[in-house]
Amino acid sequence: MLSSLKIVLVETSHPGNIGGVARAMKNMQVSQLRLVNPKVFPSAEATARASGADDVLAHAQNYPTLQEAIADCQLVIGASARSRTVSWPEISPRQAAQTCLEQPAQTPIALVFGRENSGLKNHELDLCHYLLKIPCNPDYSSLNLAAAVQVVCYELFVTAHEKQQNAALKEQSPLATAQQMESFYQHLQQTMADIGFLQPEKTQSLMRKLRKIYNRTLLDSKELDLLRGILRFAQNHNQK
Amino acid sequence: MLSSLKIVLVETSHPGNIGGVARAMKNMQVSQLRLVNPKVFPSAEATARASGADDVLAHAQNYPTLQEAIADCQLVIGASARSRTVSWPEISPRQAAQTCLEQPAQTPIALVFGRENSGLKNHELDLCHYLLKIPCNPDYSSLNLAAAVQVVCYELFVTAHEKQQNAALKEQSPLATAQQMESFYQHLQQTMADIGFLQPEKTQSLMRKLRKIYNRTLLDSKELDLLRGILRFAQNHNQK
Repeated sequence: MLSSLKIVLVETSHPGNIGGVARAMKNMQVSQLRLVNPKVFPSAEATARASGADDVLAHAQNYPTLQEAIADCQLVIGASARSRTVSWPEISPRQAAQTCLEQPAQTPIALVFGRENSGLKNHELDLCHYLLKIPCNPDYSSLNLAAAVQVVCYELFVTAHEKQQNAALKEQSPLATAQQMESFYQHLQQTMADIGFLQPEKTQSLMRKLRKIYNRTLLDSKELDLLRGILRFAQNHNQK
Repeated sequence: MLSSLKIVLVETSHPGNIGGVARAMKNMQVSQLRLVNPKVFPSAEATARASGADDVLAHAQNYPTLQEAIADCQLVIGASARSRTVSWPEISPRQAAQTCLEQPAQTPIALVFGRENSGLKNHELDLCHYLLKIPCNPDYSSLNLAAAVQVVCYELFVTAHEKQQNAALKEQSPLATAQQMESFYQHLQQTMADIGFLQPEKTQSLMRKLRKIYNRTLLDSKELDLLRGILRFAQNHNQK
């Protein structure tokens, strides 16, 4: 699931950090590393810090510009510790993992990390669909580059495994579709009208409260059938 | 919320890693560092890698043994990449964060990280209540020490903030108690009997399915009142 992900490092100053990133990636089964104009690479320091993830370093690709490094990617997410005056849509590592793993399999995705001292420039963020911010201490918000990659890749790994487990669980009874849920809400509203619960002026706020409950429950189709069965009996109750 | 947490490093070989740990901690508002018999400390390399988290290093405390380093702690969690022949109760970073933050405020808690090459010894894990395993590539499972501390502190930070937000949200409408839920399930079962939906031989499996739905919804008291209002109208429907 993580094989189409590319970690892109822009103008990294310290080769040790490139090695640390390679190790963090391999720990989480992410393998494609792209380097934009690194200060020193290859380097013995990078290999030392990679500590067994030298295969990731060996396959790393070099690019002169970020634009070229992400040319083939369909989703581009740029990491940033700083708040920006221009506002990009901001997501957390957990949201980014969800977003990446919602894409069709094999979609090429780039996660871009900027310079150690100054991050990504605004014209580089212009190439990104989302700005990724790692939640952290507002008074000390700059993570080490390899540590930032570690957190993001960890979230990707954990989310990918959760998705796999959920997929196995959901194979037998898939989640209800939005259309099925709409039919359920209409049925629920009609039933409440039939049993005399509904006051017309309060219908909208009441339905909103009920949607809030049942939307977050993530009902599967069988569960939805069960609830609709109960509604049918409640509707027909007085006809006996 | 994270102020009573202590990060304990056992016999760290590379002073750079101690600095990296200090930075990772401060990024996530964790400040208490305890060192058990470090090979080199203090050290210029540690300070360089701490990169502005030198206050964490300056307040770090040295201990000759792990036993002394955790003497005042009420909850002790030991990190391990390896699987062990003897089995300790194993938790993930996310579960560890939940466990830590469920303790009463100010409970002294230790998160213990072992040597770079060999981790914690079994007699050290004997001092721990839980063994923490970071989900990762089974073929390359040893994270850099600072990267491991980063992941764990990140989960603690994110969980602490989620808890704060949930607490604020839940202040106005607290979650229903187990007793309220039991009354609801009894009411639901009675209503289904009243409207003729219930087949006696299937009551148990049906109620189990409905409990599965409503238990995971985490209803608050107001939502529960709403659902019970609907049940009352369904019950009285035929009496009109």
